[in-house]
Amino acid sequence: MIKVSIIGATGYVGAELVHGFCAHPEFELLHLTSRSFAGQRFSDIYPVYRGICDIVLSDDDIDAAAEGSDLVITALPHGVSSEKVPQILAKGCKVIDHSGDFRYKNVETYEASYKLTHPAPELLKDTVYGLPELYREELKNAKLVANPGCYPTCSIIALAPFLEKGLIDTDSIIIDAISGVSGAGRKADLAYSFCETDEAFKPYGVVGHRHTSEIEEKLSLVAGKDIKVTFTPHLAPFKRGMLATIYVKPADCYQDVTTASLYGIYNEYYKGETFVRVLPEGTLPDIKAVNGSNYIDLGAAYDPQTGMIKLFSAQDNLGKGAALQAIQAANCMFGLPEDSGLRSVVRGI
Amino acid sequence: MIKVSIIGATGYVGAELVHGFCAHPEFELLHLTSRSFAGQRFSDIYPVYRGICDIVLSDDDIDAAAEGSDLVITALPHGVSSEKVPQILAKGCKVIDHSGDFRYKNVETYEASYKLTHPAPELLKDTVYGLPELYREELKNAKLVANPGCYPTCSIIALAPFLEKGLIDTDSIIIDAISGVSGAGRKADLAYSFCETDEAFKPYGVVGHRHTSEIEEKLSLVAGKDIKVTFTPHLAPFKRGMLATIYVKPADCYQDVTTASLYGIYNEYYKGETFVRVLPEGTLPDIKAVNGSNYIDLGAAYDPQTGMIKLFSAQDNLGKGAALQAIQAANCMFGLPEDSGLRSVVRGI
Amino acid sequence: MIKVSIIGATGYVGAELVHGFCAHPEFELLHLTSRSFAGQRFSDIYPVYRGICDIVLSDDDIDAAAEGSDLVITALPHGVSSEKVPQILAKGCKVIDHSGDFRYKNVETYEASYKLTHPAPELLKDTVYGLPELYREELKNAKLVANPGCYPTCSIIALAPFLEKGLIDTDSIIIDAISGVSGAGRKADLAYSFCETDEAFKPYGVVGHRHTSEIEEKLSLVAGKDIKVTFTPHLAPFKRGMLATIYVKPADCYQDVTTASLYGIYNEYYKGETFVRVLPEGTLPDIKAVNGSNYIDLGAAYDPQTGMIKLFSAQDNLGKGAALQAIQAANCMFGLPEDSGLRSVVRGI
Amino acid sequence: MIKVSIIGATGYVGAELVHGFCAHPEFELLHLTSRSFAGQRFSDIYPVYRGICDIVLSDDDIDAAAEGSDLVITALPHGVSSEKVPQILAKGCKVIDHSGDFRYKNVETYEASYKLTHPAPELLKDTVYGLPELYREELKNAKLVANPGCYPTCSIIALAPFLEKGLIDTDSIIIDAISGVSGAGRKADLAYSFCETDEAFKPYGVVGHRHTSEIEEKLSLVAGKDIKVTFTPHLAPFKRGMLATIYVKPADCYQDVTTASLYGIYNEYYKGETFVRVLPEGTLPDIKAVNGSNYIDLGAAYDPQTGMIKLFSAQDNLGKGAALQAIQAANCMFGLPEDSGLRSVVRGI
Repeated sequence: MIKVSIIGATGYVGAELVHGFCAHPEFELLHLTSRSFAGQRFSDIYPVYRGICDIVLSDDDIDAAAEGSDLVITALPHGVSSEKVPQILAKGCKVIDHSGDFRYKNVETYEASYKLTHPAPELLKDTVYGLPELYREELKNAKLVANPGCYPTCSIIALAPFLEKGLIDTDSIIIDAISGVSGAGRKADLAYSFCETDEAFKPYGVVGHRHTSEIEEKLSLVAGKDIKVTFTPHLAPFKRGMLATIYVKPADCYQDVTTASLYGIYNEYYKGETFVRVLPEGTLPDIKAVNGSNYIDLGAAYDPQTGMIKLFSAQDNLGKGAALQAIQAANCMFGLPEDSGLRSVVRGI
Repeated sequence: MIKVSIIGATGYVGAELVHGFCAHPEFELLHLTSRSFAGQRFSDIYPVYRGICDIVLSDDDIDAAAEGSDLVITALPHGVSSEKVPQILAKGCKVIDHSGDFRYKNVETYEASYKLTHPAPELLKDTVYGLPELYREELKNAKLVANPGCYPTCSIIALAPFLEKGLIDTDSIIIDAISGVSGAGRKADLAYSFCETDEAFKPYGVVGHRHTSEIEEKLSLVAGKDIKVTFTPHLAPFKRGMLATIYVKPADCYQDVTTASLYGIYNEYYKGETFVRVLPEGTLPDIKAVNGSNYIDLGAAYDPQTGMIKLFSAQDNLGKGAALQAIQAANCMFGLPEDSGLRSVVRGI
Repeated sequence: MIKVSIIGATGYVGAELVHGFCAHPEFELLHLTSRSFAGQRFSDIYPVYRGICDIVLSDDDIDAAAEGSDLVITALPHGVSSEKVPQILAKGCKVIDHSGDFRYKNVETYEASYKLTHPAPELLKDTVYGLPELYREELKNAKLVANPGCYPTCSIIALAPFLEKGLIDTDSIIIDAISGVSGAGRKADLAYSFCETDEAFKPYGVVGHRHTSEIEEKLSLVAGKDIKVTFTPHLAPFKRGMLATIYVKPADCYQDVTTASLYGIYNEYYKGETFVRVLPEGTLPDIKAVNGSNYIDLGAAYDPQTGMIKLFSAQDNLGKGAALQAIQAANCMFGLPEDSGLRSVVRGI
Repeated sequence: MIKVSIIGATGYVGAELVHGFCAHPEFELLHLTSRSFAGQRFSDIYPVYRGICDIVLSDDDIDAAAEGSDLVITALPHGVSSEKVPQILAKGCKVIDHSGDFRYKNVETYEASYKLTHPAPELLKDTVYGLPELYREELKNAKLVANPGCYPTCSIIALAPFLEKGLIDTDSIIIDAISGVSGAGRKADLAYSFCETDEAFKPYGVVGHRHTSEIEEKLSLVAGKDIKVTFTPHLAPFKRGMLATIYVKPADCYQDVTTASLYGIYNEYYKGETFVRVLPEGTLPDIKAVNGSNYIDLGAAYDPQTGMIKLFSAQDNLGKGAALQAIQAANCMFGLPEDSGLRSVVRGI
């Protein structure tokens, strides 16, 4: 069994990692750390795991957590990861990091977006962006993987096929997206209390949300040209789930656009992918159909009246948008079948 | 007291009309009709009204319902309203209709959108579109008012100031909107059952939703030119509430766009309006803040990186989006203060 | 207009008081205080009130808040109220207090339940317990009213008719009750965050919840004998609403119990009461039918197989269970019709 | 692999069976039938299963469904099961039935509760009630297993330890229970629509609910004497989850009751059980901690003031309350480890 430890195991991403690895036939959880709950069992914090994962949480002594681990996953705030990750790598462990700290190739973009000075920019060059559908080969030998942000994942998966082929106008990309409340993390905050969040719906971070620059850098790499996007996230009253509705105009070279041709492009590009599900024409993505899983569902529509293309992607923000995608990446890193342990992690209703 | 009767009183729009008129100092409910529940009391269907509105529901005999009524409000399906409304007008009552049947000036557009032949197109010319912020004067002498659709209301209120002044590119309007489940009406339908709707979120009607043509006709009248829009509705897991996120590009004549200038335009245009609340810069609309009321809240943001303008409007789909807006129109029609009976109809938390 | 000020106006009870008084034809809000938000407008904290209640929140200078007020309502934590209320009374204002501090006649019971020493026990004797259905006459001349707890209100209203007539075994009373999340107040607390509360349901405070002793003292006064009750509260995933399911055995003198006879007793006892609605046999209380209102709905059933009587009561925990009941009491205190301002405060769906 | 077929696979219980068996290492799904959706793929009805379970649904030809199956699970309405099950048994398959038709030993009780004449009462004698914690040995050789009702499961698990030892007064058992909406099944019914169910909470079936007699028969067998219970179900606004709060009085022989002694009894009785989790004293069951799993969590409290014992049990109504318990029983029937396939079926948050 491959030994995996999680730094920051009691946040929602950490807990979903525990969830996924408990169901995994090839990985075994070794250390779970938590600054706030050290000394308690994981199942004291998440009672649903009583009898399933009763590991005692250790404090965040990085060296101790790395000890004996083949893989360490960090689910830490940005600015903290960049300090800790080099220390873990130095212990010889592979690392998957969930923060924004290692997602950028261009350190200036990172520093402008996160208002931080990066302490280890030399690591960025060899860090692999943990989106297996685009970087599968690089993941095989990666030492450090930056797990993509949730909004970037559903944006990139939806747009990459069209950008790679130059089929869309790169000046007109609008990403309108919705996240469940778990995206805000596990914390005592009035803004995310039940009474303030239920029966509520609102946009937030409408200019300059940090995921914008991450989306732009990755799409630019796919397109081979500099791309800017208009991005608007919203908060919706459900725990999990994320849906992106994307508006783009066809490039001049893309003649005779039809809804069917959009599906054709998706089906060709994602042929053979396990976790990207191109829905049949007429079925649109719904977060309900992906929650609890590593799947991302795609749909599309062409509006002949305005000439606008609409792309739709739905994923679980904690699943394909975070923890389960990290397990998919881990499978790549350790030479396992990419769907190992990820088939059964799905909810019924 | 002005006598008002409601045809189709037990749907959600009908019930919200009862709610509003019960709190109104100048109107008195006379007849409530219901095809399905005739003979029962309104409060048998909506027990919350026990002791508040115990009127016995009559069947949908239009003549009997019109008898003695100064105003009749029809909350009927499209295609049914167009048959019944002429009959009510013939009885000398004023009418506010909630269906799509009388909302269009151009009968061809209606017939193409609704796949119906209109039986009384001669009425369209003098019908007033019941949006008081735009048609206040016309409402004063209206005999027949077509209550606007919910999506059209929040789209038009958000866009009218910019279109009237020619400040936006009319070829680039994208309306991305979200509705609560009550928008689907009161009916036994698996798709809207709790287990299928809770923790779900999805787009629907992504090409050719009927409200598209209504929005286009009304925006075209405001702009003085033919306008097409890209419109995408979504279904979200809350009972009430609607939010539109609108993307437009500034027209060439609109130089030096800033977020502050967007607010300036809103504040100037809606100065003196009771029910359109331009929020302070930095506060964005949330359905939570309008639910249960006739208010519509507006916000805006300019994204200097992409040159895109974002407009946000939030309303209660049953409030400003339907029943309470009808009461606002009724106040206009009967020479009452426009906010009569509408100030207190608001929820706490 | 009668001038009313609210101390602690930005908690959920405070906000519901603002909601109710805004709709009241005879009261006018004067001062609203908030320790946390002094200097901001009430509508900055609750944007739904923008344009409806824009009063600037003052700090909690009690003397200033009392100045010019005919009535002061305190929505403060227990232990704080008992310090502040005497000061307000000294200014000549009438007071309604929402804490537990003045609800008991027996100060020892209070001190044992709240683990506090009462600083003003001499006030308890003349304080009126603000349940108009039981203490209507006393309220007319009350200087200080203790607003009942939420669980006590629905428990006492359901049980009083049977206890007053000696119809039930006083050793067998079990009160099983459920509250919405707003009952926990407005605060940053992980336990009440959306992700921890939605899709959750659990009992809490299962032995010795403070409302137990309040229920017992008031029921004992009604019954004329010492009564103990078994009480279990639960937390449910909705904002507002409270339902009690109560189990009692008939006293030996109550022969030939039937469900119909239970309704007969309710109908007789609550004849003429506006806000206590005895539902028709066969309709059971649902929080949906009382939320947003001052109504409390009653139902009952007799189980002939076990000889057990079941009583059901539903109310809005912030309505009849807190703020709106305080307005009902205020109406009594100032000689107004008891339903003044309370008829229209009800939600549609 | 053991071949299992499901009759009625598209209801919520059927879908949860599919969910569970997809994750099971020893069972393989063979036929899935659906009267309403025959010819479509299972994943057309539940898109979450696209790529996981794409079996084409067959009509309800029982013989065809039994063909090649080692185990057939029937998720049919009562009255239908009793007709179909003998036919399946005749084909040589083992059967687990989810209806009420085979749960009773006493056919008169069944017929009185379900208002039906049982067509195959001779089967009741050898049918095993599928509660492994009580009937583990009998399950090993069972041909026909009646899967327990959801309310009976959480009631019996909570009460059995006390009844078997004669520690509680058998005349005083009160079971107050709450179910999520999925308990009502998958159907188009206004009563279970989102707008009627969200923000609602109510009792139902308060006298004579069918599960009462099932609970009574099974508890009577455990206690060795005839037992009647007072049972009240409630409907709460969440998809899944069930919680029972049970009130009993100690028998005379049970002296010096304390909360600790209640836990002692539970821990002793359920020692070694995988799926019954006796929580540590001070932690009370919450549906959140069992949803998506086959676990049932137990807690208890003694109220010294009234002498009442409170027992609490929480389970997923579709999990331990239905489909996953059936898989636990199937494991027993086929000689597999009882937790086979059931460890990973648990949700994170």
